[in-house]
Amino acid sequence: MTYQLYYWTGIQGRGEFVRLALEDAGADYTDVARVDGDDAMQPFLEGDRKGAHPFAPPFLTSGDLVVAQVANILHFLGPRLDLVPEGEAARLQALQLQLTIADFVTEIHDSHHPIASAEYYEDQKDPAKRRAADLRQHRLPKFLGYFEQVVDRGNGHALGAHSYVDLSLFQIVRGLDYAYPNAMQALAPKIPQLRALEARIAARPNIAAYLASERRLAFNTNGIFRHYPELDGGITDDA
Amino acid sequence: MTYQLYYWTGIQGRGEFVRLALEDAGADYTDVARVDGDDAMQPFLEGDRKGAHPFAPPFLTSGDLVVAQVANILHFLGPRLDLVPEGEAARLQALQLQLTIADFVTEIHDSHHPIASAEYYEDQKDPAKRRAADLRQHRLPKFLGYFEQVVDRGNGHALGAHSYVDLSLFQIVRGLDYAYPNAMQALAPKIPQLRALEARIAARPNIAAYLASERRLAFNTNGIFRHYPELDGGITDDA
Repeated sequence: MTYQLYYWTGIQGRGEFVRLALEDAGADYTDVARVDGDDAMQPFLEGDRKGAHPFAPPFLTSGDLVVAQVANILHFLGPRLDLVPEGEAARLQALQLQLTIADFVTEIHDSHHPIASAEYYEDQKDPAKRRAADLRQHRLPKFLGYFEQVVDRGNGHALGAHSYVDLSLFQIVRGLDYAYPNAMQALAPKIPQLRALEARIAARPNIAAYLASERRLAFNTNGIFRHYPELDGGITDDA
Repeated sequence: MTYQLYYWTGIQGRGEFVRLALEDAGADYTDVARVDGDDAMQPFLEGDRKGAHPFAPPFLTSGDLVVAQVANILHFLGPRLDLVPEGEAARLQALQLQLTIADFVTEIHDSHHPIASAEYYEDQKDPAKRRAADLRQHRLPKFLGYFEQVVDRGNGHALGAHSYVDLSLFQIVRGLDYAYPNAMQALAPKIPQLRALEARIAARPNIAAYLASERRLAFNTNGIFRHYPELDGGITDDA
């Protein structure tokens, strides 16, 4: 089965959570906009194509099917790529965890864009400093602490066995290492299981090959995870 | 089948999207915290119970199953309550639309809390004015315009037939009518299909009975949709 992934060129962004699943499974896929340009997404976004109408990238096509929203795409791909344990309970649990990751991703994004996605960071720098301080002090410990507990209960996996959720947690840890290195250093003693999971995922042959390839773009300050030193003030003791 | 819904007392909040589905279907359910208090949720939130570990309310239990995250709960309930058309394509499309509603809900919430959920509105009023202006001017037209197009294509339904997505769109329109009446009046000419859908949902016998009952709490300034007159400045012509 061939899949077509549609996502903005130039950044990892939300598309990367899907890309990691396709790469880990060795799936046959085309990263369409990287071949044909971002304009290739327009007919879908304008609702001019058959099938579901995506609100925004990323979306995936497979035959006549159009599947949008990261968690929905991974819910669709999971059984097909053998990236989710069998059974309804496990699939619902995977979807719930992925949705919690999606909420976390939005909070991480909004730490540099608390006012408006479409405005420049420079024009919302002061509120960004306040929101990033709250992210570092309260939200990172809460979300990462939760996922640490989940992975601890799952014997080193979110779901007790390898899944697309583990791949997404890898991406979260890597992205935060880039964007908030001081905060992540302060939190290191509290997330040994997540750190071990990150190392195991990076060592998976298909992921290692992908990370070494040109297909893996570098993190940069156009994506979701952005490193602005003025936002990475570390964490104080009362966290 | 009996369901147990767990959600904070005192507000409609995100729990209301689940409540509307249960009420519309005439499902047998208990709104647990309203009976036993908010503390009843703690063992689940601390990971002390069997089954999936919710990050936050709402969550639903059914036998041994614990299902958290609104879109995941509705994905689970949809086929059981006959609230989603049959087939994988329709279920994926429903989930995608519900996830887009979830993103919209977060943006609506953050318009009054752009800095930190845990801080008072009064302490983030100035950034809230900026974020609410962007919501009114850009995000409401974009999201509502998208859903208008979806409902237009679906002959008056998000999915061509009644579903949990229609119930959630009803809640979005009602919530925005409460929180942003000026903006919604300005947008009225652009969303006739959504407005007609809202009226049809309100007239469904089970929904009409629910809305008239004490179980339907009033919107208030503790929930997701909040009416602060200083945030509802209408929409200017260049929207």
